[in-house]
Amino acid sequence: MPGSSFGLMFRLTTFGESHGPGLGGVIEGCLPGTPLSEEIIQADLDRRKPGQDAFSTARKEKDRVKLLSGVLDGRATGAPIGFYVANQEQRSSDYNNLKESFRPGHADYSYQMKYGIRDWRGGGRASARETLCRVAAGSVAQAMLRAQGISVLAYTLSYGGIPARILNPENAVGSPFFSPDPDIIDRWAARAEEVKRQGDSIGGMVQIEARGVPPGLGEPVFDKLDARLAYALMSVGAVKSVEIGLGSEAALRLGSQNNDQMGPPAAPGGRPRFLSNNCGGILGGISTGQPIIARVAVKPIPSIAKSQQTVDIAGNSTELMVHGRHDVCALPRIVPVLRAMVLITLADFWLMQRSIDATSC
Amino acid sequence: MPGSSFGLMFRLTTFGESHGPGLGGVIEGCLPGTPLSEEIIQADLDRRKPGQDAFSTARKEKDRVKLLSGVLDGRATGAPIGFYVANQEQRSSDYNNLKESFRPGHADYSYQMKYGIRDWRGGGRASARETLCRVAAGSVAQAMLRAQGISVLAYTLSYGGIPARILNPENAVGSPFFSPDPDIIDRWAARAEEVKRQGDSIGGMVQIEARGVPPGLGEPVFDKLDARLAYALMSVGAVKSVEIGLGSEAALRLGSQNNDQMGPPAAPGGRPRFLSNNCGGILGGISTGQPIIARVAVKPIPSIAKSQQTVDIAGNSTELMVHGRHDVCALPRIVPVLRAMVLITLADFWLMQRSIDATSC
Amino acid sequence: MPGSSFGLMFRLTTFGESHGPGLGGVIEGCLPGTPLSEEIIQADLDRRKPGQDAFSTARKEKDRVKLLSGVLDGRATGAPIGFYVANQEQRSSDYNNLKESFRPGHADYSYQMKYGIRDWRGGGRASARETLCRVAAGSVAQAMLRAQGISVLAYTLSYGGIPARILNPENAVGSPFFSPDPDIIDRWAARAEEVKRQGDSIGGMVQIEARGVPPGLGEPVFDKLDARLAYALMSVGAVKSVEIGLGSEAALRLGSQNNDQMGPPAAPGGRPRFLSNNCGGILGGISTGQPIIARVAVKPIPSIAKSQQTVDIAGNSTELMVHGRHDVCALPRIVPVLRAMVLITLADFWLMQRSIDATSC
Amino acid sequence: MPGSSFGLMFRLTTFGESHGPGLGGVIEGCLPGTPLSEEIIQADLDRRKPGQDAFSTARKEKDRVKLLSGVLDGRATGAPIGFYVANQEQRSSDYNNLKESFRPGHADYSYQMKYGIRDWRGGGRASARETLCRVAAGSVAQAMLRAQGISVLAYTLSYGGIPARILNPENAVGSPFFSPDPDIIDRWAARAEEVKRQGDSIGGMVQIEARGVPPGLGEPVFDKLDARLAYALMSVGAVKSVEIGLGSEAALRLGSQNNDQMGPPAAPGGRPRFLSNNCGGILGGISTGQPIIARVAVKPIPSIAKSQQTVDIAGNSTELMVHGRHDVCALPRIVPVLRAMVLITLADFWLMQRSIDATSC
Repeated sequence: MPGSSFGLMFRLTTFGESHGPGLGGVIEGCLPGTPLSEEIIQADLDRRKPGQDAFSTARKEKDRVKLLSGVLDGRATGAPIGFYVANQEQRSSDYNNLKESFRPGHADYSYQMKYGIRDWRGGGRASARETLCRVAAGSVAQAMLRAQGISVLAYTLSYGGIPARILNPENAVGSPFFSPDPDIIDRWAARAEEVKRQGDSIGGMVQIEARGVPPGLGEPVFDKLDARLAYALMSVGAVKSVEIGLGSEAALRLGSQNNDQMGPPAAPGGRPRFLSNNCGGILGGISTGQPIIARVAVKPIPSIAKSQQTVDIAGNSTELMVHGRHDVCALPRIVPVLRAMVLITLADFWLMQRSIDATSC
Repeated sequence: MPGSSFGLMFRLTTFGESHGPGLGGVIEGCLPGTPLSEEIIQADLDRRKPGQDAFSTARKEKDRVKLLSGVLDGRATGAPIGFYVANQEQRSSDYNNLKESFRPGHADYSYQMKYGIRDWRGGGRASARETLCRVAAGSVAQAMLRAQGISVLAYTLSYGGIPARILNPENAVGSPFFSPDPDIIDRWAARAEEVKRQGDSIGGMVQIEARGVPPGLGEPVFDKLDARLAYALMSVGAVKSVEIGLGSEAALRLGSQNNDQMGPPAAPGGRPRFLSNNCGGILGGISTGQPIIARVAVKPIPSIAKSQQTVDIAGNSTELMVHGRHDVCALPRIVPVLRAMVLITLADFWLMQRSIDATSC
Repeated sequence: MPGSSFGLMFRLTTFGESHGPGLGGVIEGCLPGTPLSEEIIQADLDRRKPGQDAFSTARKEKDRVKLLSGVLDGRATGAPIGFYVANQEQRSSDYNNLKESFRPGHADYSYQMKYGIRDWRGGGRASARETLCRVAAGSVAQAMLRAQGISVLAYTLSYGGIPARILNPENAVGSPFFSPDPDIIDRWAARAEEVKRQGDSIGGMVQIEARGVPPGLGEPVFDKLDARLAYALMSVGAVKSVEIGLGSEAALRLGSQNNDQMGPPAAPGGRPRFLSNNCGGILGGISTGQPIIARVAVKPIPSIAKSQQTVDIAGNSTELMVHGRHDVCALPRIVPVLRAMVLITLADFWLMQRSIDATSC
Repeated sequence: MPGSSFGLMFRLTTFGESHGPGLGGVIEGCLPGTPLSEEIIQADLDRRKPGQDAFSTARKEKDRVKLLSGVLDGRATGAPIGFYVANQEQRSSDYNNLKESFRPGHADYSYQMKYGIRDWRGGGRASARETLCRVAAGSVAQAMLRAQGISVLAYTLSYGGIPARILNPENAVGSPFFSPDPDIIDRWAARAEEVKRQGDSIGGMVQIEARGVPPGLGEPVFDKLDARLAYALMSVGAVKSVEIGLGSEAALRLGSQNNDQMGPPAAPGGRPRFLSNNCGGILGGISTGQPIIARVAVKPIPSIAKSQQTVDIAGNSTELMVHGRHDVCALPRIVPVLRAMVLITLADFWLMQRSIDATSC
């Protein structure tokens, strides 16, 4: 019955529903002395905020974060960091017709079967609004890891079936759709427009890349770095696959094509170089010092303005059209969430590795 | 620094290296009264045993499991179940030339960087031999879940790039390559033969299907059932991707094509039916009562009889050809391991859900 | 670096400092359907509120709890329950002279050494104000356990060295000092008055008794019920000892005097009766069905209006007199906190035992 | 249903029953490079071995430990350390008359009620034999902490009601009864002899003292160092109380008598000195750098050669006299076990603190 915490040494515990008073959480493990403020976290939250373009929900939440503990004079104290974001623009009446019926593709039915009771207002705990807590914690993780030279980029690989052609991850920062390819943006916008007109929705692929990660992070054999990344990323609603490095393509390769061979350090005393990075920066569940590459598939938003067959709580057949204010695609808003989950995971392993190797971390 | 345990209520903790005295573990959470014996576990272990066909390592381990605790008169007592498998046919001398060099595609380098020390004999803790502990625990999980009508099938979807064309999961039980398609077996064997001749290796895809899983398993928001399955499966060495249901294909679909619509129960008082199972039996991280479908990509075995560039511990360039007794492909031996991880995960969530819903579980 | 969570299945995670914005937490594991409201929790919080008598701090906090999630229409939904209590009457200036010095008996020095940074305002995270989060969670645990017939009483055994002579636990409810002995109250009040006049402080002993606990709670061998109770109770600031049943007196007895012999059930089909309860309701770490008895010693409040030798952050000798608004004794305000910790622990084990014995729990 | 693990970063998981094949466990978190061997652990195990004097069980177990993993060439590798001790001299027939009856003071009844099934042979999982796994892990913890200058002494404070008069902890090493007072040994032996003749049993008090512990260990607010020590020590069968520092005496003191005042460092740049150590080396749940003092009461052995009233499984009244080979007192054999639990707890917190303060640890 728990399930609302993630991480061992750097740990996030969250609460909150879409249409309750608000959402928040507790972040444990931030190193004392880490520079922190509401402004730093707010900047990250703003990147997943609804209502930033024509294709996301018209719900206009300010999503103002309030830090409740653990920070004094702009620095973390080592005490748990409580934070809270009040809900403001709930319109539960939008959901009145959903109180008695199960929306296809949503968690309505499975929650009802699990708990025997369900907060039907806006999806309750299953709403994507819970992800703002992840972004807040990712922001704290980034503040801590920045001093270690670790950074994480996340960007859209494909949108509604249309792949980016050029992959310059740096382009994604601040770009529409977090696109690594400036030339594809118009086509993606057109696709979103078209699908919106049809009352339908689309999905996409996101890649996350972590740089500056030292070798040695990851705890075999179950808490492998890639295993925990898969856990972290698949825990985000709408994610249906996680790949590391070459991912599913590796299944098609010969060993001689897949192995990353090694060469001597570029400079004396340096670390050996890998001649490729098919493994995505992880071998045996432990980081190699190369960039860590993860990739996820995001399913289309289940709320669509089309009539769908479903049943009500009594099991009677009914038709349902989902009203309310919905995104056309979980991208781009999911991109900062996925980045946050990778940051949280790395922060956790980085702290753990300090216990082994207090000198190098 | 931990990492050798998996699960909360049904929990496996393992130890052991490829060329040490042996491997074993502790299984907690098996319901008292569950029928258990060394024979039951041995039957599952035999399915991943080396030396069963021409394409797997010639190392001839008997892998005889010994139960050390937690079972009395053929039944689990509720106490932790200790088990042990002695190593018998170690030939560490095969690895002498690897003591000072890092094998490409293996965990040699990352372990060295993490711990500053490394059991170089046969891969040490990073050897695939650790997976026999997972199979033992999966066997215990199966013994417990069988009485609940839950079963798990795992089968090879594609091998060395050649997909099975017919998918009859029942065929896989006891079949070469755990193939769901009897007609493809000869082609797979020929491909393995060819690759072996070339001194190279191949990978493949495995699908795992869980049937009879009641709705309600999974703990939002981080311990979603799919998140924990991804964690469980990606923790198996050589796995490079995890997909649930449609997986990455979901990213290409419209919402109207991806949502699983619902119809009324087949019989009064029954559960509503889903008209499709694109979601793979999980919505909002909680089981729906439909079959749970997961799919993984397995990379080619990194040990190949071809010269590869690498470096030694001092960072000097060197060439390496891996001798020793190696599989051509991690399939089929990895298939029972993946099945075991799904069983362990389900056992864990099933016990957790009993705390909420003591009547229905 | 974590440490702010308690419990496995019923779990509390807290945050907050004495002079920050407020305190709160997340409660996981409350059974869906449990009746809950702010009023229920507030009633328990009011029992530990400051300023209720002449001997507790003059700080007048309303300690109004706000439920932020997990409750819908007066019932728990199974989602995590977020709660928050804003601080209102901080007077950090009272602590200005403590910014640079370590108060004897307080955690100032140890926090400084651990974190290298310290929230000096009112003790920060080390303030007894954190215990209100424990009381809130205990209230939720009680709401859940009440339906099982489990209840917990806590009462003052001795105060400032003066023992209660009559032990009628029921008397303690709503009584001054949570006294089980109505005749001792005046003497305790006089003792508190005297010590207050001297600018000094006192401690006491508290007993906690849990009734209606079914046999079978507790998880050997480390998570014994008594072990977790000791953990829970000793985690409350100012507690210096934990005893179960006879406690330290057991060390003086012969086996024949200490063993609890058994007799047949009072009625056919009932449970056997124990002829005594020296063990305090726990054998082998598992509840026996008898009342569970725990006892703790509470040290005197370290803040005293007397000059004490100490050092400042630079290590220079200095004298310190603690101003501010302080209790004379941690009793009676600690009593509801200790009761809460026992409730939380029992809720956790009760949920765990449901996984084994779904019928009887 | 778990409960067989202790610790977060330094973690022990155990299995095994008194009359099964053997006992063992898995130790995670030992720093790579730590000197380790079977001999080192065996030396500690020998200190709790049965049959060392006339007052302990006549069962003659060699208790030979076998290391199964995690050690290479005399050093820990960072991989989990599996270990095993085979049972040799089981005489389950001694327990035949106990199969159907519940022994007073033992866990027979509570296990039966919890699991509905019970390994009745020699107490099964509830046997004190499980403590040898704790000693093995304590030995590994000591090997790791020794390099940090941390050591732990444990000694008998009183035995059968007779206190030691002189407290020189160093005397206890290798002394009969782990006595800190050489002059009391004869009286203790006479008391044991007398009680043995009467077919009865006795208990005692043990003190544990940890030296060289740096300030900063402990994780507020629940995982306080004292809270985890109470947890660790109370988890040892037969322990009925845990005190820290002054313990229950603190409840009788005035604040001005209980506070530990501070003075300047003895030498420039040193740490401030405490003028007393009433708190037992822990303030606010965090170590202060002073010796850590814990004290426990141990109840008399419940197995006595006297007729006792009890019931059988059917609930019928019966009389029972416990045959078999039993100690007169859990002391001295429990002393190394308690020492081990403190070592394990300190190792855990020391690793955690390295994550915060990588330079000073």
